[in-house]
Amino acid sequence: MTTHDTQITQTDETDEHVESLLDEMTLHEKAAQLAGTYVGTMGETRTVEDAAEMVRDHGIGFVTPFGYGASPHRDSEEVVEIANELQRIAREETRLGIPILIPIDAIHGNAYVEDTTVFPHNMAVAAARDRTLAEQIGTVTATEVAATGSSLTYGPTCDVARDPRWGRAFETFGESPYLVGELASAKARGIRDAPVDVAAMAKHFPAYGEPERGEDASPVDKSLSSLYRDFLPPFEKVLDEGVEGIMPSYNSINGEPSHGSHYWLTEVLREQLGFDGYVASDWNGINMLYENHRVADTRREAIRQSFTAGVDVHSLGEQGHVEHIVSLVEDGAIDEAAVDSSVARVLRLKSDLGLFDDPFVDSETATETLGAETHRGISLDAARKSLTLLENDDDCLPFDSNVDNLLVAGPNADELTSQVGGWSLKETDELDGITIKDGIEAQVSDETTVQYERGSGIAEPDDVDAAVAAAKEADAAVVVLGENWYLHEFGPQDVNGPTERFPNRADLSLPDAQRDLLERILETGTPTALVLVSGRPLALPWAAENADAILHAYYPGADGGTAVAETLFGDNNPSGKLPISVPRSEGQLPVRHNYLPHPYPIGEDEHLPSYDPLWPFGHGLSYTTFEYRSLSVSNETVGEGDSVTVSATLANTGDHAGEEVVELFGGREYSSVVTPVEELVEFERVALEPGEERTVEFEVPVAAFDVVRPDGTSRFEAGTLSLRCEGLEATLEAVSQR
Amino acid sequence: MTTHDTQITQTDETDEHVESLLDEMTLHEKAAQLAGTYVGTMGETRTVEDAAEMVRDHGIGFVTPFGYGASPHRDSEEVVEIANELQRIAREETRLGIPILIPIDAIHGNAYVEDTTVFPHNMAVAAARDRTLAEQIGTVTATEVAATGSSLTYGPTCDVARDPRWGRAFETFGESPYLVGELASAKARGIRDAPVDVAAMAKHFPAYGEPERGEDASPVDKSLSSLYRDFLPPFEKVLDEGVEGIMPSYNSINGEPSHGSHYWLTEVLREQLGFDGYVASDWNGINMLYENHRVADTRREAIRQSFTAGVDVHSLGEQGHVEHIVSLVEDGAIDEAAVDSSVARVLRLKSDLGLFDDPFVDSETATETLGAETHRGISLDAARKSLTLLENDDDCLPFDSNVDNLLVAGPNADELTSQVGGWSLKETDELDGITIKDGIEAQVSDETTVQYERGSGIAEPDDVDAAVAAAKEADAAVVVLGENWYLHEFGPQDVNGPTERFPNRADLSLPDAQRDLLERILETGTPTALVLVSGRPLALPWAAENADAILHAYYPGADGGTAVAETLFGDNNPSGKLPISVPRSEGQLPVRHNYLPHPYPIGEDEHLPSYDPLWPFGHGLSYTTFEYRSLSVSNETVGEGDSVTVSATLANTGDHAGEEVVELFGGREYSSVVTPVEELVEFERVALEPGEERTVEFEVPVAAFDVVRPDGTSRFEAGTLSLRCEGLEATLEAVSQR
Repeated sequence: MTTHDTQITQTDETDEHVESLLDEMTLHEKAAQLAGTYVGTMGETRTVEDAAEMVRDHGIGFVTPFGYGASPHRDSEEVVEIANELQRIAREETRLGIPILIPIDAIHGNAYVEDTTVFPHNMAVAAARDRTLAEQIGTVTATEVAATGSSLTYGPTCDVARDPRWGRAFETFGESPYLVGELASAKARGIRDAPVDVAAMAKHFPAYGEPERGEDASPVDKSLSSLYRDFLPPFEKVLDEGVEGIMPSYNSINGEPSHGSHYWLTEVLREQLGFDGYVASDWNGINMLYENHRVADTRREAIRQSFTAGVDVHSLGEQGHVEHIVSLVEDGAIDEAAVDSSVARVLRLKSDLGLFDDPFVDSETATETLGAETHRGISLDAARKSLTLLENDDDCLPFDSNVDNLLVAGPNADELTSQVGGWSLKETDELDGITIKDGIEAQVSDETTVQYERGSGIAEPDDVDAAVAAAKEADAAVVVLGENWYLHEFGPQDVNGPTERFPNRADLSLPDAQRDLLERILETGTPTALVLVSGRPLALPWAAENADAILHAYYPGADGGTAVAETLFGDNNPSGKLPISVPRSEGQLPVRHNYLPHPYPIGEDEHLPSYDPLWPFGHGLSYTTFEYRSLSVSNETVGEGDSVTVSATLANTGDHAGEEVVELFGGREYSSVVTPVEELVEFERVALEPGEERTVEFEVPVAAFDVVRPDGTSRFEAGTLSLRCEGLEATLEAVSQR
Repeated sequence: MTTHDTQITQTDETDEHVESLLDEMTLHEKAAQLAGTYVGTMGETRTVEDAAEMVRDHGIGFVTPFGYGASPHRDSEEVVEIANELQRIAREETRLGIPILIPIDAIHGNAYVEDTTVFPHNMAVAAARDRTLAEQIGTVTATEVAATGSSLTYGPTCDVARDPRWGRAFETFGESPYLVGELASAKARGIRDAPVDVAAMAKHFPAYGEPERGEDASPVDKSLSSLYRDFLPPFEKVLDEGVEGIMPSYNSINGEPSHGSHYWLTEVLREQLGFDGYVASDWNGINMLYENHRVADTRREAIRQSFTAGVDVHSLGEQGHVEHIVSLVEDGAIDEAAVDSSVARVLRLKSDLGLFDDPFVDSETATETLGAETHRGISLDAARKSLTLLENDDDCLPFDSNVDNLLVAGPNADELTSQVGGWSLKETDELDGITIKDGIEAQVSDETTVQYERGSGIAEPDDVDAAVAAAKEADAAVVVLGENWYLHEFGPQDVNGPTERFPNRADLSLPDAQRDLLERILETGTPTALVLVSGRPLALPWAAENADAILHAYYPGADGGTAVAETLFGDNNPSGKLPISVPRSEGQLPVRHNYLPHPYPIGEDEHLPSYDPLWPFGHGLSYTTFEYRSLSVSNETVGEGDSVTVSATLANTGDHAGEEVVELFGGREYSSVVTPVEELVEFERVALEPGEERTVEFEVPVAAFDVVRPDGTSRFEAGTLSLRCEGLEATLEAVSQR
């Protein structure tokens, strides 16, 4: 493969190459470059031989190596061989020798392949609030993706999670458009700047994270103001970093399915946002226009609609797609020139990625690269920074690592599958990692007895009595509860069982078996830390009230067990901050820090509060204490296009070294339309020794306070702007300069 | 007062009168016609003397006699005296003698005045599915409103309840835009055709019923497609009936508060929908632009915005509003011509209502009119038709009225305040009605012993043991649970206690005390009917599973106790149908029959169902059985502007006479945008003797299948249309005629 640097200088050559190829291609060959297939099971099963035949006989342009559950080919050497063999066929056994492109769902590392680095999921990375870390994760992911022959990753995820019931919340960077945008673009930078040629595909455009009922892929029905204010900003930021691809969302937006929306994919994406890369369907998203959204009365019409709307590539199109595109051109329903444009985007990308020069990879490089120590180190670092201490009554944590007798209990204490979460290998024996129990055993002193009693499954009871008996004997207990491995709407059932079983979208509380385990262990009076391994926030008011300490671990990845153990025993001082609000109950939803203000017809005190989470966005404790001493702004007035320097001074007033994420929130006193009470506008992670004081400076553009109008346009408006950092507040005036 | 008929012929005369008055008026006098005050407590307290002074000294044009909780003046003779005295002052002690207009919140009858007819609330009327009944209620309400000196009622309610957590759901006609539109317009017709001059004010324009979090007056943030498809149709229908006023909603719509929205109040309401009546603020809705929505930085600016947007009258404006309007005109911020237009609307209304001729009423007429036997009969009829039998295992109901020993229990068994619900007098001793316990005592045989043990309060326990002991002795039990009297966000607290207490917006399940009572009575094995007195659907899966019979009574009004008793013992065969879906839990929300279809990325069987209510919209059992025998359409194809005759044949195959509401649902197979899976498109109530068969014919306009586009416009589209009635389905083709 070529290195990234040469890519840039190749542009003219590439154009010529693409032009000359296009001249040579038949309509059928062009259409085949717009269709993909897969190896694995996605509804139907495709073997490597099936894929090879499609490439050889039909010139199919894309092969994705994995089904959504898991690939039948998980051994890294085998994956490399398959990739090389498919490329060999494309290069040697097709008329024009056009290489295939192998995209991959590397959501948190190349995690469907054995021996790779499996990072914490994005929700955890968002808790870490560390742009450099997100870049590193992007770079390692790209590197490990390239090592197994893939050259495009379906990410970064730009979705804003506005409903915790949604089964894909864990894949997102949380509820703040600013936070999601910062971290998704950091990840895109990391992919871009990796020493390999791997393309990024931002997803799921334009809005996916507030589905009706929290049901995956159900409609997002919101005002244009909300769409442009709450959902689009992360995409705008990521496009500024230069991602190569965009994936539309499965759902409909205000009646228009994204995969068939000319407004979103052409008017907004290409014309307003200036995107010139390629757009590929999310798996079978095109067919869904016909089968589910019912906006097309045939499959062919679905293809016509989505192609006309702006989708270049049908990821699961296979020969059927090729034939439909050909016949649509022949019937004059779509222009061949438009097909040429789409094909040119695909060929240019393949060329830019060096696939025409050398699409092959070798397994020795793969072995050296996958799961390299430096890579695993970044994964461990991410887990350490993400762990979020929600409660710590009477400094229950950290535990003493010399404790005599420690109980470890709960379904996720020794369960690597739950620890990595979906979009990963799911067989424990294929995963290489440290469970929380393993991590604890490695962390405690040689004299400590660690007893392990599972005590409960995820949804089914286990031997709770044995766990309680052990708790009575123990000096301290760690109970690890939460969710397991799932995808989309908490499936598939062959992993997770029936849809009504926990976890599911309607229930944010823990199942009885888990709650019972926790209650009974707490009743023993043994100091107990609850660790939550859970992709999304769970509504646990009882635990909040009664547990001595609660540590939220998200899906902390393969090395998360070490990070959790280090944190429980004080070798890591927790510094994660919640990237999403935790509700008290499902009945409270939506619970978001950036809600819109509104009237109280019979008095404000007659309403339950509009925002009264169990733990708010941004919450996270430390073993030390930070005191915020001042917040100041460089200017009393600012104008359009200006920025303001905001300085926050804080000190570590406790007796542990620690890291603190300084978070700056901004809001407007008045504006022409209703605007959120506040939004996160900046953040920075700082490390402080005990007694150390530091001033953090933020350069905040006044544009962060722009007002999004009902038609979706944004504009500067004069008025008082307020900034908040912990308990401190500063204001300034935005003034019109005419 | 003049009679309604003369009103129409007065138009020319009225115009002249209004013109000449306007010529004479000072700017201050004009502005005063755009301001109202009140007698009662709404934040601040106003006495009759306060109001009198405002009319006398400032020429204030409107006086509303009641605070939101309850008026200090509830005696009907006193109310008449106050109305007459205020009118006397307006007529005799102001320079121009312009009468005041007295609007009133007569949501379900003139229910803040003693001796009046207190109807079931709208949610119950919606369950009755009877247009004639809704008309009669409108007529009686207008008649009793006029009798106490008021000449405008704040209604009909056109809100569509799309979140059962909302504290105002009970005031609506439910979740179907068609049903809401039909019944709101029937009620408007009833008011219009009453033998008195009372104006109607449709509310709350344009969208109020899907507030974020279910919180009252919180934002409605929806696509234009949803706003035009789900919220506006009832207003369009009611405007066709000719209501005199429109009240904007408190909340913001996509960032624009309705009270300040030129788009909604002028472009849509006046220009698109052609409304030429007057628009009055919902109480303090104008000031909320400043205080809560924060789209105005002063009160004055809030007034300027809302006046410019299209609000004619500030219902709580008082002198402050007058002064601001005057100064805004003087400063050129608003046109005096616009003020003249608004004042002309007010004066024309006052003239049309006959207030210039004779604004006085007499207490003798009031005494004869209020709560007249025929009026109460309509209220009882409404309650009978609304009662909805949700479960009836093994024909538990009807009970035998000769039963030896009957237990009546529960907080709402003998509680008239809960039975009438909010927007009514709330002191039991001021209410004249029949509780459920009273109704049962009147219904059973002389030999029957009726034991009453409350057993539980609404939220607090009562003597549950006594109730259980009685249940053990009883041959049958009636347990009456549910909600109590509340307004808006389940307040005010001086009636209902702290906001976190049941009922509140976050909790749709019954409080422990009520659930415990029911559980323990069911454990006795005594046949038990659960009666729910509740304004909104409650999520009671346990009760659904375990109670022998469940009768939903909504807020059945002052005579509801009789209707419930007649139903329990078989003198009334229940025929109500749910006007809103009942969810299984808060985590399922939103649960609506007219949801939008969507894809299932990893398979349909991997999702909990999109619509899986505890009981669906339209559900309701009978003591007899109805068999639907055929469903047919008059045409196989239809074109734009056509209608189709749909015939449904059904028979009473049981052995009781009964009424059945035939409900016709319609949907499209494909359309250019995603459309609801189905919508209610027609209904008709029919009475059938045992063995009787009947064919119901519906004339359904093809326009009922029009597709609402993302910009809110509707259009005819060709395609297959499907119609469903119970288990039967019929299809037809809509074809383009060009």
